[in-house]
Amino acid sequence: MKKPRLMTPGPAPVPEDVLLEMARPIIHHRSAEAKQIITDCAAGLKYVMQTQNEVLILTSSGTGALEAALVNTVQRGQKVIVLNAGWFAQRWQKIAQAYGIEVVSLDFEWGQAVDPARLQAALNEHPDTVMVCATLSETSTGTGHPIQTIGKIVAGTNAVLAVDGISGIGAMECRTDEWGVDILCVGSQKALMLPPGLAFISVNAKAWAKIDAFDAPAYYFNLKAARKKMVDFDTPYTPAHTLLMGLRVALKRVQAEGIEQVWQRHSRMSEACQAGIRALGLELFSERPAEGLTVFRVPEGLKEGDIRSKLSDRFGITTVGGQDKVKGKIVRIGHMGYFDELDVVAGLSALEMVLHDLGYKLTPGAAVSAAQRVLISGSSA
Amino acid sequence: MKKPRLMTPGPAPVPEDVLLEMARPIIHHRSAEAKQIITDCAAGLKYVMQTQNEVLILTSSGTGALEAALVNTVQRGQKVIVLNAGWFAQRWQKIAQAYGIEVVSLDFEWGQAVDPARLQAALNEHPDTVMVCATLSETSTGTGHPIQTIGKIVAGTNAVLAVDGISGIGAMECRTDEWGVDILCVGSQKALMLPPGLAFISVNAKAWAKIDAFDAPAYYFNLKAARKKMVDFDTPYTPAHTLLMGLRVALKRVQAEGIEQVWQRHSRMSEACQAGIRALGLELFSERPAEGLTVFRVPEGLKEGDIRSKLSDRFGITTVGGQDKVKGKIVRIGHMGYFDELDVVAGLSALEMVLHDLGYKLTPGAAVSAAQRVLISGSSA
Repeated sequence: MKKPRLMTPGPAPVPEDVLLEMARPIIHHRSAEAKQIITDCAAGLKYVMQTQNEVLILTSSGTGALEAALVNTVQRGQKVIVLNAGWFAQRWQKIAQAYGIEVVSLDFEWGQAVDPARLQAALNEHPDTVMVCATLSETSTGTGHPIQTIGKIVAGTNAVLAVDGISGIGAMECRTDEWGVDILCVGSQKALMLPPGLAFISVNAKAWAKIDAFDAPAYYFNLKAARKKMVDFDTPYTPAHTLLMGLRVALKRVQAEGIEQVWQRHSRMSEACQAGIRALGLELFSERPAEGLTVFRVPEGLKEGDIRSKLSDRFGITTVGGQDKVKGKIVRIGHMGYFDELDVVAGLSALEMVLHDLGYKLTPGAAVSAAQRVLISGSSA
Repeated sequence: MKKPRLMTPGPAPVPEDVLLEMARPIIHHRSAEAKQIITDCAAGLKYVMQTQNEVLILTSSGTGALEAALVNTVQRGQKVIVLNAGWFAQRWQKIAQAYGIEVVSLDFEWGQAVDPARLQAALNEHPDTVMVCATLSETSTGTGHPIQTIGKIVAGTNAVLAVDGISGIGAMECRTDEWGVDILCVGSQKALMLPPGLAFISVNAKAWAKIDAFDAPAYYFNLKAARKKMVDFDTPYTPAHTLLMGLRVALKRVQAEGIEQVWQRHSRMSEACQAGIRALGLELFSERPAEGLTVFRVPEGLKEGDIRSKLSDRFGITTVGGQDKVKGKIVRIGHMGYFDELDVVAGLSALEMVLHDLGYKLTPGAAVSAAQRVLISGSSA
């Protein structure tokens, strides 16, 4: 027997009740029942995203929400600053370039957090910046960026702050309204405990003012069209409504647990996982770890592929390696959404055994003991 | 007890085995298993779309595929001809206009089929036309358009023929390669027997030549990026892979039945439904009915809402009314995908009873008898 254990930073596991909800007979997407589903999802999304703004629903991957944020808000030839500290931050840049938007890229070492002082300097130098493109949790490096501080800086300018919260929301604290996040993009397949296929975007008044100022070259991702329909809890085009059925159930779980408790659970899992990794003498890749995943450097003498395939072959655990410039150099372990502390202990236990089998020197039990100490003390609560 | 019977022209019912396949534990979207799913889906899609072209997978509604067809192939300021005979044909026009593409709209009465002679004349008048935008099955009117004839006309020009096959493919004959359909757009939630959330687009060499000739202002819907990834059975961004898991099962059903048999089943259901409608003294709305739905005019003295709500309240049958200029004037009954002849008989039986209850004069059994005669003679086979 090999139980499947998906420990990737998205797609992440989906609770059984959510899976079964989506296996119910198909309903019509313009029925009263469908409207009620969207109504409930809208309320739940506002709660999990901690915002009073409209939250719009897109049938796409998270990338679709990033594209919607850019093309609706920034006109061709206008300028954005991208806080560029990983593969997914780069996506902001690539989308902007595809639409003729000028990009000022502030580059940071992968694994480092964005330095707010550099953003402040860049905004001073480029007062014509229309948008600052940031990332809450950079999935490629396992780094959490200081969005609260960034929000304070951007709030004092005419620029809007757009945050990629795709792998962050539901795993890491993000007080959208309080922190001045003008546009927040979220994907369904991470800590929201759903399959991929939906994206969500919250937009505040500061951002709407820019959006309303021009006719964006956008149809499918036109936010004005989405806003118009959302007033009536509807969407401009057929939504992936079975995923919305599942979302309602998943959001009820978050609402029942409480968003603060959800954040704390992820903090505890993250700290426990980090403690376990360090106890094995492994090096964390990120200087400021995100809370939905833990990333470590592949130790000298071992191969990333060997570690990951042994985890899979022996324990059914799926992890991911590095992308682009860190390919082969890191292993990324996801623990976002439908995860509890024992899943992290189990993952560390498997990692110990696999590393031992590969000839890596370790004290058996070191990782799980270290994790256990964190969980007993509940240090992050 | 009220059994749910979804008889709308999309979303259409999803077979139980497909629903349960999608309720399996989530896998990683870049795993070997995911690649195999895309490999199998690609082969199945080519079969159901009757094409040797690449078929690309988009995570969006069908509208996303229409947008992809337009923005990747036609440059701003260039010209398209839209064969404008319904609500969804109009969507071609709206998308084109949102991207600054010039539209020559050939307008036809809703319910009428496109007249190929008018297209020929328009192409003669506008030799600089880059694309002709057509619809296989116009869902808003229940009309099937003569794509084979249209294909012959467009083949003799420099223009490409893009066909919205969203509610047509899997219900109506469409020999994509043989008929000269250069770009074919399909949605998942119709005769392909899946929930909404995926779109598919096939592109032939004539269309690729136009696509390769410029850098389209497209990122999420960039077809060149999708083609590059599809070589390796992958997608540029996280796909809705649980829907792809379901798609594989749904496509196996089509492959097992045989596409010709699937078309014939829909022909029989369509003819039986039309015969039943006529036997009740009702008027079909379309002069050239599509085969995945049947549309009739609301008879004098009755209200569309009354007919539809009684069908729903008494028999759990969901139908839809008219959109835009035919709102309140028609009722649309879907029978596409996971439908057989008995479903049509049941639907007609319910319609008879409901109309009778509403005071409409009819001979009990007239509709079901007429349908039965078609089914016994198997006239369309």
